[in-house]
Amino acid sequence: MSLLVVGSVALDTVETPFGTATDALGGSATFFAAAASLFCEVQLVGVVGSDFPVRQLDFLSGRGVDLRGLEQVEGESFRWSGVYSYDLNSRETRETRLGVFADFQPRIPEAFRDAEWVFLGNIDPVLQLDVLEQVRSPRLVACDTMNYWINGKREDLLRLLSRVDLLLVNDTEARELSGDYNLFRAARWIQRHGPSMVIVKKGEHGAILFAGETIFFTPGYPLEEVFDPTGAGDAFAGGFMGYLARCGSTSTDDLRRAMVYGSALGSFAVEQFSVQRLISLDADEVHARVRSFRELTAFDHIAMVTADA
Amino acid sequence: MSLLVVGSVALDTVETPFGTATDALGGSATFFAAAASLFCEVQLVGVVGSDFPVRQLDFLSGRGVDLRGLEQVEGESFRWSGVYSYDLNSRETRETRLGVFADFQPRIPEAFRDAEWVFLGNIDPVLQLDVLEQVRSPRLVACDTMNYWINGKREDLLRLLSRVDLLLVNDTEARELSGDYNLFRAARWIQRHGPSMVIVKKGEHGAILFAGETIFFTPGYPLEEVFDPTGAGDAFAGGFMGYLARCGSTSTDDLRRAMVYGSALGSFAVEQFSVQRLISLDADEVHARVRSFRELTAFDHIAMVTADA
Repeated sequence: MSLLVVGSVALDTVETPFGTATDALGGSATFFAAAASLFCEVQLVGVVGSDFPVRQLDFLSGRGVDLRGLEQVEGESFRWSGVYSYDLNSRETRETRLGVFADFQPRIPEAFRDAEWVFLGNIDPVLQLDVLEQVRSPRLVACDTMNYWINGKREDLLRLLSRVDLLLVNDTEARELSGDYNLFRAARWIQRHGPSMVIVKKGEHGAILFAGETIFFTPGYPLEEVFDPTGAGDAFAGGFMGYLARCGSTSTDDLRRAMVYGSALGSFAVEQFSVQRLISLDADEVHARVRSFRELTAFDHIAMVTADA
Repeated sequence: MSLLVVGSVALDTVETPFGTATDALGGSATFFAAAASLFCEVQLVGVVGSDFPVRQLDFLSGRGVDLRGLEQVEGESFRWSGVYSYDLNSRETRETRLGVFADFQPRIPEAFRDAEWVFLGNIDPVLQLDVLEQVRSPRLVACDTMNYWINGKREDLLRLLSRVDLLLVNDTEARELSGDYNLFRAARWIQRHGPSMVIVKKGEHGAILFAGETIFFTPGYPLEEVFDPTGAGDAFAGGFMGYLARCGSTSTDDLRRAMVYGSALGSFAVEQFSVQRLISLDADEVHARVRSFRELTAFDHIAMVTADA
């Protein structure tokens, strides 16, 4: 049940209506591993600079995350800085300093190449393709992407899509990629271009899984305070993939449950800055939230009662 | 199980990316009754002008809608004209001609005053309050409203809220009314001001019920073509209230099911112009869609599987 993640490990400076975090742990691989490591062993591949406080990643090692694929090289670490609007629904990037991430060439350690479950975090699709050349026979490959690659490296991205099983995107990205405003047609377009599964993330409005003909929704968890939305999508992916890897299944029933575990992890991620909430999180809390998700949507379908029935 | 609706009966001219409908049946009471009459007997109170094609309402009588409360008076009928954006998520009003609706003073026929279930469509809250003076002891009163009244007649609206059991609003209205961006806090604010229940409608993103401490979500139905969104909210209200009136219950389980029936009716309403789809709709189709809604969100919650479990 080995789960490999390749992505960014970064330092985020985030300003929200609730305060500011400076040079806090961030990056897609970090959030993903923090979530997925609650479910299974995780192998992480990424790069950080000589200035990176690697001791802050000890919590990952403590949860069984194998960091042998994390290179530390001379130079500055990837830094992102952004500010969220008062409603937390939009954000503005103040600064992106790629640092050593600009020259990132994922090298998958020999010990990781038999990974069954692979998550390609949001990086250049050329690099994502390169990772696929290095792994041997993954059972399920999932990838994330963003508008920057959709517009700037469309051909490479389409080549990648033809080789992955699952694409995770947000609603705006699904629309940009497909050129179709309707999300359901957009997802079908993506499925025709490779991935048999698509997850469309809609932030506070929840997420939708398209798997073959199946469509499954999870709502946004009813949080009266969203503290910091950064990393919610990667925590979702970590919960989703971690659950599947843990149970070793891609049955429709398990995909549905994986969506709920993903949604649960995403909802925890936004409760505090950076990965703080994912660090303190334990299995009982995840349990309880999954039960809450069930309460949010479950209904017994009794016999139809209409006037002419 | 008598269900009373008071609201507008109008002629809509609607332009969507799919075409134009001119002077088509519209109005909150019309859409509500068209949906609710699939579940139970409905009593309708409204006003139309001398130009109104009343024969077009025969389909309502045929389904047991009592139209004795529909006055026809000298003058022009209420007409609304609007155009939807290409994505159908926003609309612009071209013209509103109130006609005889400007002087509407709801008169509830004696035969309707014992109604157990009451829906106050989106009209002046002063008139909505006046209706409450005329009905004797309704079991559940629900009302709709809009930004025009939230901003223009706030005090009257707050007086109304203190006397109703359920408010149905869209997300923008919930935020405007409460002054709180967070929908979950906004709903709690509304509940503190009277209604024990609030339904927040989010269009393509579904709907949320707040009933006491219970929160329940229904997703937007995955439609690859949304033909005309007009009336979806009133069809939702008709399905919701019709279901409750039909089963004579406001148990939490029935409220959950009512949300799904409401969502189903709302999803049918947008498939064609005006009330056309609600006219052709039968119980089997509603059945099937409710089952589809169940498929969209149901999951079995098996024992938690996490690395430290």
